[in-house]
Amino acid sequence: MKYSFAKSIEQLESSAVRDILKLTQGSDVISFAGGLPAEEFFPVEAVKQAYIKLLDSGKNALQYGLTDGYLPLREQICQRLASKNIHVGPENMILTTGSQQALDLLGRVYLEQGDVILVENPTYLAALQSFRSYGVRVVAVESDNDGMNLEDLQAKIKAHRPKLIYVVPTFSNPAGRVWSTERRLGLLKACKMNDILLLEDDPYGEIKFDDQAEYPPIISLDDHPADSPVVYLSTFSKTVAPAMRTGWAVADKRVIQAIGKAKQAADLHSSSIDQQALYYLLGDFNLDEHIVKIRHNYKARMQLMNDLLAEKNLPEVKWTKPAGGMFFWVEVSPQVHTEQLLKMAIKEGVAFVPGTPFFAETPLTNTLRLNYTHTDEETMREGMNRFAKAMNQYLTAHV
Amino acid sequence: MKYSFAKSIEQLESSAVRDILKLTQGSDVISFAGGLPAEEFFPVEAVKQAYIKLLDSGKNALQYGLTDGYLPLREQICQRLASKNIHVGPENMILTTGSQQALDLLGRVYLEQGDVILVENPTYLAALQSFRSYGVRVVAVESDNDGMNLEDLQAKIKAHRPKLIYVVPTFSNPAGRVWSTERRLGLLKACKMNDILLLEDDPYGEIKFDDQAEYPPIISLDDHPADSPVVYLSTFSKTVAPAMRTGWAVADKRVIQAIGKAKQAADLHSSSIDQQALYYLLGDFNLDEHIVKIRHNYKARMQLMNDLLAEKNLPEVKWTKPAGGMFFWVEVSPQVHTEQLLKMAIKEGVAFVPGTPFFAETPLTNTLRLNYTHTDEETMREGMNRFAKAMNQYLTAHV
Repeated sequence: MKYSFAKSIEQLESSAVRDILKLTQGSDVISFAGGLPAEEFFPVEAVKQAYIKLLDSGKNALQYGLTDGYLPLREQICQRLASKNIHVGPENMILTTGSQQALDLLGRVYLEQGDVILVENPTYLAALQSFRSYGVRVVAVESDNDGMNLEDLQAKIKAHRPKLIYVVPTFSNPAGRVWSTERRLGLLKACKMNDILLLEDDPYGEIKFDDQAEYPPIISLDDHPADSPVVYLSTFSKTVAPAMRTGWAVADKRVIQAIGKAKQAADLHSSSIDQQALYYLLGDFNLDEHIVKIRHNYKARMQLMNDLLAEKNLPEVKWTKPAGGMFFWVEVSPQVHTEQLLKMAIKEGVAFVPGTPFFAETPLTNTLRLNYTHTDEETMREGMNRFAKAMNQYLTAHV
Repeated sequence: MKYSFAKSIEQLESSAVRDILKLTQGSDVISFAGGLPAEEFFPVEAVKQAYIKLLDSGKNALQYGLTDGYLPLREQICQRLASKNIHVGPENMILTTGSQQALDLLGRVYLEQGDVILVENPTYLAALQSFRSYGVRVVAVESDNDGMNLEDLQAKIKAHRPKLIYVVPTFSNPAGRVWSTERRLGLLKACKMNDILLLEDDPYGEIKFDDQAEYPPIISLDDHPADSPVVYLSTFSKTVAPAMRTGWAVADKRVIQAIGKAKQAADLHSSSIDQQALYYLLGDFNLDEHIVKIRHNYKARMQLMNDLLAEKNLPEVKWTKPAGGMFFWVEVSPQVHTEQLLKMAIKEGVAFVPGTPFFAETPLTNTLRLNYTHTDEETMREGMNRFAKAMNQYLTAHV
C-alpha cells in the first residue's frame, strides 16, 4: 500500500516539546522541558468527590452532550469571567478539549491557504504548528518585555494585511512577558480599525506571583464585546488539572457558532463527564483559594530557579525574572546552539526546550525555555547542576 | 468588526441530527432522531468505582498524557480486538475523542482539496460533513442490503481515481445493512490493487442481535495488517458510555503517526482521566456480559418498533428488520417529502431524521431514520402513535 498523505501534514513537524517528553518519560532525566503543573498540588480528593457526586446524580451523566459544552459549567465560567470584567453569556462560549482545540478550531474556521497571521516574537510553538497546518504564512512582530512594538505592528499590518493576530499577553509562552495596558489597548485598536481577528490566549493569567497585580485581559478592555475582534481562550489545565482537558473560547456569537459547526465535524463534543465533574467541583471546592496556594508554591520554585541560575554564574547567560506563568526564557552565549546543547544535556540527565521552534521566522539559536513548576527543590537543584555541567562541557568542546 | 470565515466553514451545514437534538432537548417531543444509547443500561456504578479507583491511585492521574492515548488502555483494546481476529499492537492504535475525531483527523492528514472519496449510498451524515470540510468531492457507490455493488465500485474507481473509500460494513448508519463477506473481500481487494485507503467505521459491530453471528471486520480479512489499506475505527460510546468520548483508530504505524501529528496540533490529547478510568473499568467489570445484556434489550426494542411499524399499516411504508445497530431505515410513499413531514411530526410531539442528509448525491427524499434504542416501551408506543398521526395528516394535506 502506497500511502499519500496531505501536503500540510507532511510539512507538519512533530512538536519538539512532546518529542522530548516522550524521550524522557520513564527515564531518570530531569525535565525542565514540558509545561507541566506540579502533581503534588492537584486537588485529587476534591476531583474524586466531584466524580462521585456526578455519578450518584443519575445515569444521564453518561449520555451524549451538546457540542458547545455542558451549559451549567459554561454559566459558572461566565460568572468567574465577570470578576475579570469580561461580561458575556454562555452563548458567547464553547467548551473545548483544552484551549489548544479552541485555537485549532478557530484556525480551521477562519484561516485559508495563503492568509497571513501575525504573532509575537517568540511565540507558543503549538500555535505555530496548528496555524501552519492551515497553509498560512506566519509573520513575527518585533516584541519586547511590554509586548509587541506598536510601530512594527502598524508596518506589518500595512505590508501583509493579516487576517488574524495571535498573542499571549499575560505571561507569554515562552518569554514570560506581561504586556503593558497601553500596548494591549494599541493592539485592540489596530485590530478594530483593520477588521483583524485578535486571538488572545490566556492559559497562565491566574498564575500571577503578585496577588494584588491586575493584568486586564484585552477582551475586558473592549467596549463592545458583542461585536468584538477578540477571541479569548483559557483553560482549567493549569488551575485544576490537565487530564480533564477542559478549555474554552469566548467570542462574538457568530464566531462561537462557526467554531461549533467545526467542532461537530471534529468530535461532536468533548468529554461531558469531565465537564460535569468540573461543574460539581466549582460548586464544592474553593478554586480561588487553591489558585492562591499554587501561586505561592510556584513563586517559590521560580525564585529558587532564579537563584540557581545566578549561582551557576554561566558566561553570558541572561534572563528576566517572570511575574507569573511557568517559564524562564534564557538567552545564553551567542556561540551556543541550544539544539546541540540539548543533546549534551540529555546525556547529563536534564532536558529543556531549545528556543528555535518558538520563532515564526529567523530564530535566536542561543535561547531556551526552562519550566520551574514541575520540579521540587531537591530535583531542581540537581537538574540545575546537570544543566550547568552540560553548558560548561559544551563551551569547553566548542570554544 | 467584519468577520471573514473560511469558505469551507461557510459551506459546512450544521448537522441536521444535532440541530433536532437541540430543538427537542428539554421539550416533551419524543425523539427517534439521535443515535443515543439507552441511559438505563449505562453501567454507572461500575464507572463510578473506576473513577474512585483511579483517583485513589495517586495524583499522576491528573497530569498531561500522551497524544496517542493511555498505553495500558491501548493494550487492553488490542487484547479485545485479538478476539475479533484483529492482531495489532498499541503502536498501531491512537485513542481519540470518540471515533468521530479519528475520522476527522484521518481526513485532515489524508485528503486534499479536489480529492474524490467513495461512500455507501446512503451513508453516515457526520462523515459527509467532516470530509466535505476538507474540500473533497464525495461520490456514492450503488449499494444494496449486501453492501456496495462491486461492479459499480470498479466503474467508479476507474472513473474517479478515489483516494479513500469510507464504509460502515456492519449495521450501517443509517441503513442498518450488514455487508456479505464476499463484498467485504471484494472491496478490500479493490483497495489493495488501486492503493486506495479504506476507512472502516465500526461503532455498532458489538450491537448484534444474534449472539452467535460473526461479521468479520474487513481489517480482520487482511493478510498483511502491518501494511494494510484499512484504517479501522471503533468506540466505547455504544458499549460503555458516550460521555467518556473514547474511540480509537487502528492502522499501519505510518498512518497512526500522521494522525498523531495532527492530533498534537488539534488538542494535544483527549481526556486522559477518562481513558484511565476506562482502563480500570475494563479490569473490574465484565464488559462482554454487559454487551450481551444491551444486545438483548435493544433487540426487544427493535422488535417492538418493527411490530408497531407493521401495526400502523401506513401506505407504501417499507423497511428491513435490522440484524443489529440502532436504526430503522424507512422508505415512505414517494409523494412524502420527509423534511416537510418532520415539521408536522414535531408539532405532534415526535422527531426523526429525514433521509436527505445521508445521501452524498441525489437524495431519496421519501426516506427517514428511526432510532429504537433510546425509548422505553411506553414512550415508543406513544411516539409511534404520534408518528402515524403526523404521517396521516401529511397524506391528507398533500394528496
